[in-house]
Amino acid sequence: MADTLIKVDLAQSAYENEQVHNRWHPDIPMACWVNPGDEFILETYDWTGGFIKNNESADDVRDIDLSIVHFLSGPVGVRGVKPGDLLVVDLLDVGAKPESQWGFNGFFSKQNGGGFLTDHFPLAQKSIWDFHGVYTTSRHVPGVEFAGLIHPGLIGCLPDPKLLHTWNERETGLIKTDPNRVPPLANPPFAATAHMGKLVGDAGRRAAAEGARTVPPREHGGNCDIKDLSRGSKVYFPVYVDGAGLSVGDLHFSQGDGEITFCGAIEMAGWVHMRVNVIKDGMAKYGIKNPIFKPSPITPTYNDYLIFEGISVDEQGKQHYLDVNVAYRQACLNAIEYLTKFGYSRAQAYAILGTAPVQGHISGVVDIPNSCATLWIPTQIFDFDIRPQANGPTVHIKGGADVLLSQDVA
Amino acid sequence: MADTLIKVDLAQSAYENEQVHNRWHPDIPMACWVNPGDEFILETYDWTGGFIKNNESADDVRDIDLSIVHFLSGPVGVRGVKPGDLLVVDLLDVGAKPESQWGFNGFFSKQNGGGFLTDHFPLAQKSIWDFHGVYTTSRHVPGVEFAGLIHPGLIGCLPDPKLLHTWNERETGLIKTDPNRVPPLANPPFAATAHMGKLVGDAGRRAAAEGARTVPPREHGGNCDIKDLSRGSKVYFPVYVDGAGLSVGDLHFSQGDGEITFCGAIEMAGWVHMRVNVIKDGMAKYGIKNPIFKPSPITPTYNDYLIFEGISVDEQGKQHYLDVNVAYRQACLNAIEYLTKFGYSRAQAYAILGTAPVQGHISGVVDIPNSCATLWIPTQIFDFDIRPQANGPTVHIKGGADVLLSQDVA
Amino acid sequence: MADTLIKVDLAQSAYENEQVHNRWHPDIPMACWVNPGDEFILETYDWTGGFIKNNESADDVRDIDLSIVHFLSGPVGVRGVKPGDLLVVDLLDVGAKPESQWGFNGFFSKQNGGGFLTDHFPLAQKSIWDFHGVYTTSRHVPGVEFAGLIHPGLIGCLPDPKLLHTWNERETGLIKTDPNRVPPLANPPFAATAHMGKLVGDAGRRAAAEGARTVPPREHGGNCDIKDLSRGSKVYFPVYVDGAGLSVGDLHFSQGDGEITFCGAIEMAGWVHMRVNVIKDGMAKYGIKNPIFKPSPITPTYNDYLIFEGISVDEQGKQHYLDVNVAYRQACLNAIEYLTKFGYSRAQAYAILGTAPVQGHISGVVDIPNSCATLWIPTQIFDFDIRPQANGPTVHIKGGADVLLSQDVA
Amino acid sequence: MADTLIKVDLAQSAYENEQVHNRWHPDIPMACWVNPGDEFILETYDWTGGFIKNNESADDVRDIDLSIVHFLSGPVGVRGVKPGDLLVVDLLDVGAKPESQWGFNGFFSKQNGGGFLTDHFPLAQKSIWDFHGVYTTSRHVPGVEFAGLIHPGLIGCLPDPKLLHTWNERETGLIKTDPNRVPPLANPPFAATAHMGKLVGDAGRRAAAEGARTVPPREHGGNCDIKDLSRGSKVYFPVYVDGAGLSVGDLHFSQGDGEITFCGAIEMAGWVHMRVNVIKDGMAKYGIKNPIFKPSPITPTYNDYLIFEGISVDEQGKQHYLDVNVAYRQACLNAIEYLTKFGYSRAQAYAILGTAPVQGHISGVVDIPNSCATLWIPTQIFDFDIRPQANGPTVHIKGGADVLLSQDVA
Repeated sequence: MADTLIKVDLAQSAYENEQVHNRWHPDIPMACWVNPGDEFILETYDWTGGFIKNNESADDVRDIDLSIVHFLSGPVGVRGVKPGDLLVVDLLDVGAKPESQWGFNGFFSKQNGGGFLTDHFPLAQKSIWDFHGVYTTSRHVPGVEFAGLIHPGLIGCLPDPKLLHTWNERETGLIKTDPNRVPPLANPPFAATAHMGKLVGDAGRRAAAEGARTVPPREHGGNCDIKDLSRGSKVYFPVYVDGAGLSVGDLHFSQGDGEITFCGAIEMAGWVHMRVNVIKDGMAKYGIKNPIFKPSPITPTYNDYLIFEGISVDEQGKQHYLDVNVAYRQACLNAIEYLTKFGYSRAQAYAILGTAPVQGHISGVVDIPNSCATLWIPTQIFDFDIRPQANGPTVHIKGGADVLLSQDVA
Repeated sequence: MADTLIKVDLAQSAYENEQVHNRWHPDIPMACWVNPGDEFILETYDWTGGFIKNNESADDVRDIDLSIVHFLSGPVGVRGVKPGDLLVVDLLDVGAKPESQWGFNGFFSKQNGGGFLTDHFPLAQKSIWDFHGVYTTSRHVPGVEFAGLIHPGLIGCLPDPKLLHTWNERETGLIKTDPNRVPPLANPPFAATAHMGKLVGDAGRRAAAEGARTVPPREHGGNCDIKDLSRGSKVYFPVYVDGAGLSVGDLHFSQGDGEITFCGAIEMAGWVHMRVNVIKDGMAKYGIKNPIFKPSPITPTYNDYLIFEGISVDEQGKQHYLDVNVAYRQACLNAIEYLTKFGYSRAQAYAILGTAPVQGHISGVVDIPNSCATLWIPTQIFDFDIRPQANGPTVHIKGGADVLLSQDVA
Repeated sequence: MADTLIKVDLAQSAYENEQVHNRWHPDIPMACWVNPGDEFILETYDWTGGFIKNNESADDVRDIDLSIVHFLSGPVGVRGVKPGDLLVVDLLDVGAKPESQWGFNGFFSKQNGGGFLTDHFPLAQKSIWDFHGVYTTSRHVPGVEFAGLIHPGLIGCLPDPKLLHTWNERETGLIKTDPNRVPPLANPPFAATAHMGKLVGDAGRRAAAEGARTVPPREHGGNCDIKDLSRGSKVYFPVYVDGAGLSVGDLHFSQGDGEITFCGAIEMAGWVHMRVNVIKDGMAKYGIKNPIFKPSPITPTYNDYLIFEGISVDEQGKQHYLDVNVAYRQACLNAIEYLTKFGYSRAQAYAILGTAPVQGHISGVVDIPNSCATLWIPTQIFDFDIRPQANGPTVHIKGGADVLLSQDVA
Repeated sequence: MADTLIKVDLAQSAYENEQVHNRWHPDIPMACWVNPGDEFILETYDWTGGFIKNNESADDVRDIDLSIVHFLSGPVGVRGVKPGDLLVVDLLDVGAKPESQWGFNGFFSKQNGGGFLTDHFPLAQKSIWDFHGVYTTSRHVPGVEFAGLIHPGLIGCLPDPKLLHTWNERETGLIKTDPNRVPPLANPPFAATAHMGKLVGDAGRRAAAEGARTVPPREHGGNCDIKDLSRGSKVYFPVYVDGAGLSVGDLHFSQGDGEITFCGAIEMAGWVHMRVNVIKDGMAKYGIKNPIFKPSPITPTYNDYLIFEGISVDEQGKQHYLDVNVAYRQACLNAIEYLTKFGYSRAQAYAILGTAPVQGHISGVVDIPNSCATLWIPTQIFDFDIRPQANGPTVHIKGGADVLLSQDVA
């Protein structure tokens, strides 16, 4: 059995675990070291460090201080790996902690981060998803059961100082273009809630002041939230510092393309079983800027889809120029409207799109002025038939359960 | 055998075929009528009406007058179908014309329409793809052979006057925001090259002056360029006029998600075998605004992918806010760079992304400020191994053949 | 477009077409010649040469003289190919003749060949299947529609004299163990109905007297009836004579594993588009005795199955020793019994197993004394849900249509 | 988290665990009880109860007393379930014991059970397979790594006295036809090594004397060794006694169709997470004799196969009549011969066929006198290309490692 190099105790604060961090900075010391070819296991908190609870209130989703995320396990140093190499990571398996066989999905309040459809769902909402082996169901979203496409939402290597500087420059530059926007355009460094792993004292404070937030995906990978980076996949990461410094967290039991609900997929605490290898000078050899990967042979094989189209004309009828975001939003809204015909609330439909193995394709991006995006719902996850019939839809969801909602506090 | 209701003669000008049209307008008379439940075949020109030739020059791609496209076969009237219904179309089969077993892919000059990567490929280029039963190869792009995901790029029903008006208003509105842009933001009605089918004389001229161009996808479907709308799929179209008025054209032997090369997929002349049915009042029953569809059980089963990530920081390092277009462009550029390591020219790599059954996923759209898009290349279409190896890539493409290029005329 | 090297006129007797033959013999002259690398098309009769008709009687299935089958197109000579080589055949596409968009499935009378379940279905029966592009339906078997896994049931190269001798020796040897069995154990050479292609006169008569019948699969491939040898697949055939002598016929629009109904799959007249290449001395290099092949990327992707088990205890409760045939027969009978609960007649259920893309797996062959075989029915081919429900099956097939039946003639 | 109702301690003899048994008999008391709808976990020994070790000798495979197998966990009683019902079992997940991340594959000596190819592999051999998350590799069989299709080889409900009597009658009847055969035709009841769970004393001895051996699959399912009965699948079992009495064991990390090596798949100790429900009177409602099941959406998606054909002419050239066993044996031998061309020993090739997710299809069973069986090897499990090339195979396996072998003891 592979050794567990990082353990997390869900009853303990993530801030007290020095093998965990929540910012990107080259000075964060390695939490542990391995050799190329090694197999090992890292346990992780959920991305909020346990803030969101398995209960019947969305208050925690409303009240969370998002500056604390994401709690990552690592960095893992790999001996002999140098900047310019590719770190080859086999995600041999990913799972939930045995004592924590559930996850959460939520929508943030528009006042606290929002989400892809925040104008339509402006309040904090939450659903809890129970795991049944390879499957999941939710007491808040009846009528669906699906196999998990389990994956880490966030994984990548430490930046070097130059790359870190680039990130901070360009993101603070963006913020300055509309500094008071709600939700904000980006998140600047924020020392107060930083957790720099083993780096403490003055050095820790200095690094905290400039450590990049973990929210966006960047050149190193990071918070890509790619559902297909699942257990069984093989990822090639760019390396910027000696030892690579691989960190991972934000595990998802399942997610739809786009992670449109932002809070987010089916979020869980768990563990990642991985193996690392190296391709020397791989970045130059293969011209790599961002990570590349091979997906897993072990993924849910749902293949009967109902596909919704959206074009880049927004909800108000305004014409946008080849804007895939607008087009995908329309496809999502079209799918939500459709699912309500079977009895789902709009929030339940939104939760399904955020959690199930839904595909989002960039179908057309050149036919001026409209992009076309498609959203693919696997029909086999429903315990009734959602396909169109000559005599119209039958209402299968009769109400009762719904996604939890908490009003904003004035 | 199903009857062929519309025939096209590739030796004849598309303008001479009164069962063909190249604008959307409610007054275009039905080219033919069928009953619900009927099966029939429509032949189609390629989208340019035969302008692009199977030869060794890209001059035709450079010189084409794009106001002539797309030449559609139809409209087909379906008896008893009313506005508000859903027209259920089974795409029973799609194929190339027996006498025309080839297609073309090209990049337009930036001065004549451009494409998704026009800043990187500003000149007219062309590759010819030969069909070998279910497979295709190109003498201009060696080392790849793949099975076609054959589909119509363009299909949909006639708009009613109100919808037509909406389209023209919003698109001309967009054009006015930057009327001299090259390439333009959108295409306004343009009577000079309009072909209104059986509608001729004064009525034809009036309709031509306001007929919507066929370039963008819109509420009715239209030029969606969705590769998965392939033979074997079932599509549910909104209906706006009595008889529906279904038209189809722009057939593709294969295409990657996004149709990024714009000219376009592997474009071909061919035929569509289809069956129509109706769901009465289906638009309201199912809350349908845009078409929805079920994909085909007969699609290439390539499932070993190499996946490239892109984020919404552009080639110049500029930070964009959750912009999927920018992210997908980076994923495409990353993939092109990678493929050059095996000996491909950048144009050949671009052509592969535009023609092969490449997937483009909207992987993350909420992690401010970066969207994450992924581009999936099926490794099984290459006759060598494109996966990363410890000792780096081997050059398999040794030059000689390349995508044709024509310089702009001053 | 590839040239059509062999044409068949369905209005003409197959015996009058000298590019057709119905026996295997090394002396049959090549019907035409091609070069390695060539692409070409061969048209074929259905296996009976048109004896079975698209009508409402099974008399033709009852009355057919099976000594006339199979009418094959070929042999095609490939220049430079020698005994010991492997002939690499790409089945680029396969289709029905445009003027003959239908096929038949039948069960032979036990007195005229029988079938896998002949003791349960001892009389001649027939169903007609209409083709709708990539799909098929039958007026005699309602409630199912499926995409075709189109393939030649019979394809292979000419034997050399030694191999022919081996075949005749071992098969006539088997016949002698029970010469009067009905149906027979094997079919010996039979000159009266032989068609030796271009070989006529005395030489033709001599060859006819020893030409091997085409019914069984043998070392060269031949009548393998492997549904997965479908369009898009690549096959490596052993070569025994100069020029290889490739013949093909017995096209199937679709078939279940085992071709259990014997008459057979959905049998049709059609065409095969293929390309040939050679691996010199490939038989020795790869240790090849029987053909090997790579399946197609273009196959129906039905993946939701209901799987039936059978063990090697027969219908009478008799224990057999690890006998897969008995086990598979039980799995078939279990599936037939199950389908009757939804209203199908037993003959309709049998026809579905023979025609649809049903899988038959050898699941266990070592657990003495019982083999276990499984039969996989794709649930997505039915227009109702065949999966077990808590409250039992609903009868969806209300009678009316049934598989045609003709009583034996005394 | 679901409760673990049966625990096994790998350091303890299976005979000492009263929730384990190794014979089928209606009098075995329930090991524990659950309600319909319950989820729970059962741990299991490997089928030999730990006799086979992770070491470098095949002596244990040679010396094992096969009368001790299989050690099953159960029976689990389900409250309210009656004879004639269907017990619906969701195999929610299956895994190896965390402390035992390895499995074994072996061939029994012909003197001790043999296997499908025992005439070709008459001696005891063994390979050890290590688990790496979802993947496995063997130090004895280099060059292959594959994802596991994890499943219980043996699962089913207790027989009633009548069914037990039927089993014993028909199997002892078979044995009597050749009582001295090596290996035997079947295994009669054998009290000396029976473990009857909680049933001890005189009652236990009486039951042991007539308890059915667990080796063959039977009407209730039992030792079906169906690789597709994997985690994520849903199985419908016939019920014969009050409470059903479900037992499970013989877990496999992976297996090829047929489990041709007999000892067997990749055998392991582990756990099964399951949920039970009931369809009242389901056996009659659906006409069920043997179990039926729906396969899992979570299975390895390898889809690039090399397929080997075999016909029912045996290794000595003898003609058999439509014998699928003979045909499948030839397909296996053809595949083994082929794999040796890349450097594998014959034993390594045999081990791959027994362990990897290889498919075995009953391709043709009616074309007298030859059956055709096909064996499908997934090419993607090899770390080199096994497909035929124009210039012949390259030897990738250079020797050194091999499957362990132990000579028979005189």
